Amino acid sequence: MKALYFDGKLKLKDLPKPEIEEGESLIKVLLASVCNTDIEIMKGYKNFKGVLGHEFVGIVEDSSNPQLIGKRVVADINIACGECDLCKEGLFHHCRNRKVLGIFEKDGAFAEYITLPNRNLFIVPDSIKDEEAVFTEPLAAALEILEMYHIKPTDKVVVIGDGKLSQFITQVVALTGCDLYVVGKHEEKLEHLKNKANTLLLEEVERLETKSVFDVAIECTGNEDGLKLAQQLVKPTGTVILKSTYNAYATLNPTDWVVNEIKLIGTRCGPMASALRLLEKRFVTTDYLISGFYKLEQYEEAFSPKNTFKAVFDLRG
Amino acid sequence: MKALYFDGKLKLKDLPKPEIEEGESLIKVLLASVCNTDIEIMKGYKNFKGVLGHEFVGIVEDSSNPQLIGKRVVADINIACGECDLCKEGLFHHCRNRKVLGIFEKDGAFAEYITLPNRNLFIVPDSIKDEEAVFTEPLAAALEILEMYHIKPTDKVVVIGDGKLSQFITQVVALTGCDLYVVGKHEEKLEHLKNKANTLLLEEVERLETKSVFDVAIECTGNEDGLKLAQQLVKPTGTVILKSTYNAYATLNPTDWVVNEIKLIGTRCGPMASALRLLEKRFVTTDYLISGFYKLEQYEEAFSPKNTFKAVFDLRG
Repeated sequence: MKALYFDGKLKLKDLPKPEIEEGESLIKVLLASVCNTDIEIMKGYKNFKGVLGHEFVGIVEDSSNPQLIGKRVVADINIACGECDLCKEGLFHHCRNRKVLGIFEKDGAFAEYITLPNRNLFIVPDSIKDEEAVFTEPLAAALEILEMYHIKPTDKVVVIGDGKLSQFITQVVALTGCDLYVVGKHEEKLEHLKNKANTLLLEEVERLETKSVFDVAIECTGNEDGLKLAQQLVKPTGTVILKSTYNAYATLNPTDWVVNEIKLIGTRCGPMASALRLLEKRFVTTDYLISGFYKLEQYEEAFSPKNTFKAVFDLRG
Repeated sequence: MKALYFDGKLKLKDLPKPEIEEGESLIKVLLASVCNTDIEIMKGYKNFKGVLGHEFVGIVEDSSNPQLIGKRVVADINIACGECDLCKEGLFHHCRNRKVLGIFEKDGAFAEYITLPNRNLFIVPDSIKDEEAVFTEPLAAALEILEMYHIKPTDKVVVIGDGKLSQFITQVVALTGCDLYVVGKHEEKLEHLKNKANTLLLEEVERLETKSVFDVAIECTGNEDGLKLAQQLVKPTGTVILKSTYNAYATLNPTDWVVNEIKLIGTRCGPMASALRLLEKRFVTTDYLISGFYKLEQYEEAFSPKNTFKAVFDLRG
């Protein structure tokens, strides 16, 4: 089968079709989308060698559970051992022996086929199109903010960043009814969020006399400057929510957090079933997020920065 | 009056006795103790120029409220404007225009007299000795951990550091009934906490095979290494509570917080009335924390590192 393999350099390879073990399904990939984490992996994050890709929708072609065969599915990307101390507490996303689809010790979805444990699969309701279902994973990651922190309808919240992740986060956080702002560098990206939030260009924020007025600041820029701006924008006793994963250290001043009694909360993967519910109920708009469809062979084009939002590999017939 | 004045160098000065304004009291200082923050200020923290000292117990000698005259008092060290947006929300400790006793724009308690707003004062019950009351402020700062974060009786908690602040924090956190550990570098300091917690030398912790097992790690070492150890010891989805203020940046990896969904919570000054209740009920032991009594003239000795715990300036009779 064809697959995009990374071993320091990304290349199209012909790999053997994977085989399932007890408790697993073989999934034919329909669509798979590019995430900034893929790009970070290509810069060295996680030292991953293997097939990239963790956002996908596919069809179960074979399974140890016959009821799954023929079903259209998305998946939780964390493959837990089920036996370590953290799994026993139900913290499967943090399993000490976990593999992560296309990120750590498990070949990913930029391929014709993948295998996954049945317990990781979520059946996609018929009313959700492939082009929407492919974004269930990043939408769940955005929802993890609301899973880990109670954003109140009366909170004043700022999302820092206007990229792919911000588009999901802003849409999800807007559903709380909070007083929502988004800060970005790109007028054309912010444009898409104007009906969900108050949008601000970075230069407008820099001109504000008193910056520290937000109850919550959500950082999704993918760099250290975003976190520093979050610290400036959050008011004393406020909360900074971190979403970016990047392959770098940051120079920070923890004394500021102590003096201003700031909370920082890291959040990663989220609840897939909840994300499917939001898609099914049409609370989130994803059409505009597809910047282009590509064949696996067109990977160079798919990874080019000209894609404003999501490049999607289309492996359908 | 005599006072220890800092302007880049600490010196004993003869200053005019301060005068009270409407809503204030004049307090004759009885005892005042040295905090690590005083030492950080002498290294440049906050660029403070003035009389140092913010932990004290005193007697009200004059006041705009006659009922306070003659009363023995301790004080909240944050002097709030009462009018800014944060004060209007009740966040007086974070007032945008605040002065802080002996730390920021307000002369402190290493002096014969200080003035403070009446609303900052807390009357000390007769059953609490001067030698205990002087520690109300650092005890309240330790209690702020429990004010800002719910430590459960079933949590596994580690305090990192065995210095002055750790002694208060460990005693306070032990009251929750949690499974408590303290990590330090000094056998003789840890010795005092053996009846409150499981004590571990740093080298013992470094030998542990799996370190990330604590629900909560409380950092009070006063340096960047403490925070790094806290990150190692806290389990995924766990909470790091920060107490140290120091005049330095730290090189940190925010991606770790995101991947492991770690929370970090800065905490500073705490509830004085609650601290007085704990002292009154004898839930906290402070006798052993006094390493020596000094006159203001003996400031060099008081600030010497030979004081294992608290140097106390005694201005009584």
